[in-house]
Amino acid sequence: MERLGVEVVAFDVNETLFSLERLRPAFTEVGLDPGLVPLWFARVLRDGFALTAVGEFAAFADVAAETLRGLDPSGIDDAAVATVLGAFGELEPHPDAEPALVLLRNAGVRVVTLTNGSAELVGRLLVRAGLGRYVERSLSVDSVRRWKPAPQVYLYAAEATGVAPGQVALVAAHAWDCDGARRAGLRTGWVARSERRRPQFFLAPDVEGDELPDVAARLLDAPSEPL
Amino acid sequence: MERLGVEVVAFDVNETLFSLERLRPAFTEVGLDPGLVPLWFARVLRDGFALTAVGEFAAFADVAAETLRGLDPSGIDDAAVATVLGAFGELEPHPDAEPALVLLRNAGVRVVTLTNGSAELVGRLLVRAGLGRYVERSLSVDSVRRWKPAPQVYLYAAEATGVAPGQVALVAAHAWDCDGARRAGLRTGWVARSERRRPQFFLAPDVEGDELPDVAARLLDAPSEPL
Repeated sequence: MERLGVEVVAFDVNETLFSLERLRPAFTEVGLDPGLVPLWFARVLRDGFALTAVGEFAAFADVAAETLRGLDPSGIDDAAVATVLGAFGELEPHPDAEPALVLLRNAGVRVVTLTNGSAELVGRLLVRAGLGRYVERSLSVDSVRRWKPAPQVYLYAAEATGVAPGQVALVAAHAWDCDGARRAGLRTGWVARSERRRPQFFLAPDVEGDELPDVAARLLDAPSEPL
Repeated sequence: MERLGVEVVAFDVNETLFSLERLRPAFTEVGLDPGLVPLWFARVLRDGFALTAVGEFAAFADVAAETLRGLDPSGIDDAAVATVLGAFGELEPHPDAEPALVLLRNAGVRVVTLTNGSAELVGRLLVRAGLGRYVERSLSVDSVRRWKPAPQVYLYAAEATGVAPGQVALVAAHAWDCDGARRAGLRTGWVARSERRRPQFFLAPDVEGDELPDVAARLLDAPSEPL
């Protein structure tokens, strides 16, 4: 049976490799209800996608800052915005991230990250978490000035790693990310950790699993045709 | 001083003409925290925009239903989904909607609605609220199979009403909607009611106001060049 032939795995970062849990105490610190983190993150993506849908772009940090200010129009000062955005530099990896990275590297698969955020920030997160040794390169949408799920981003990941789109697998905790990657011609793996349930209006991933090592192992074992 | 020359005003529906308040008791009725309504609505838009960004489409009701199920992966049954989606047929108009419609009609301006939802549903909402008499036509993204803020939607509103894009003004409570309309060549009015604060990464509207009659009056009075 022929395998997928994935040569590069591109991991999404926020919620996929790294937990957003660290944002909760940052919200508390600046007087915001930490229960608002999911609403905030959904609105950041909503607004970033709105710009993408009209062919425009703003940096993640700018969308995050403005959207944060919108959570409490009575006033969120610059210091509070800096505190919350600074917490993105202190995200902790999910415990299943390193085993998945080890599994892929041991199988000779190259690993990169592909984020709607900043490549430089992700590079620092990886080093801080001791994961830098597994990751060849941190790629960001800043290079193409479109957010995922625009096809340009996924094709850029293939181009930057020097392989065909079909030899790159995007692994993400978000069904919209897998959908976009698959439409651009990549292979995809969805980890169920935060969404649990995949909306049926998005294309199914090639493989899925409850934890990242499951997803990684299935990417290596998956037949070249969908089951 | 030359005026904008707006001949048609296209109102957004959800949160602009009609309040989503009615969704809260529906959430309670099916055992969901009504505080989750804003998160749900943000995710509906996020996922609809993700599809739009890759040139794809799903109907609002389908995205709303699937996204609702994702709020509680332990299980939201079909009856609960029907209850919540049914509440969209019972939305109440904002109190400032009718005065704005009267003002525009008295000035000889034509009025339509332009929604990411269903035209048929909006038609029923308008009749139920006694606003049908002011509205010439309910337009929906279903006709072009792209959600707002894709430019096709706004251009469709101009085409359907037989005027140039620059003679149509989109009025919405959402900065992303005004941004998309303006990029497509329409005039725009933003009502501050739900967002209060406009993200700076979106284009500014031609006019803005705290209530719909302010916005409507300013659209009629605005000079043809931005202030």
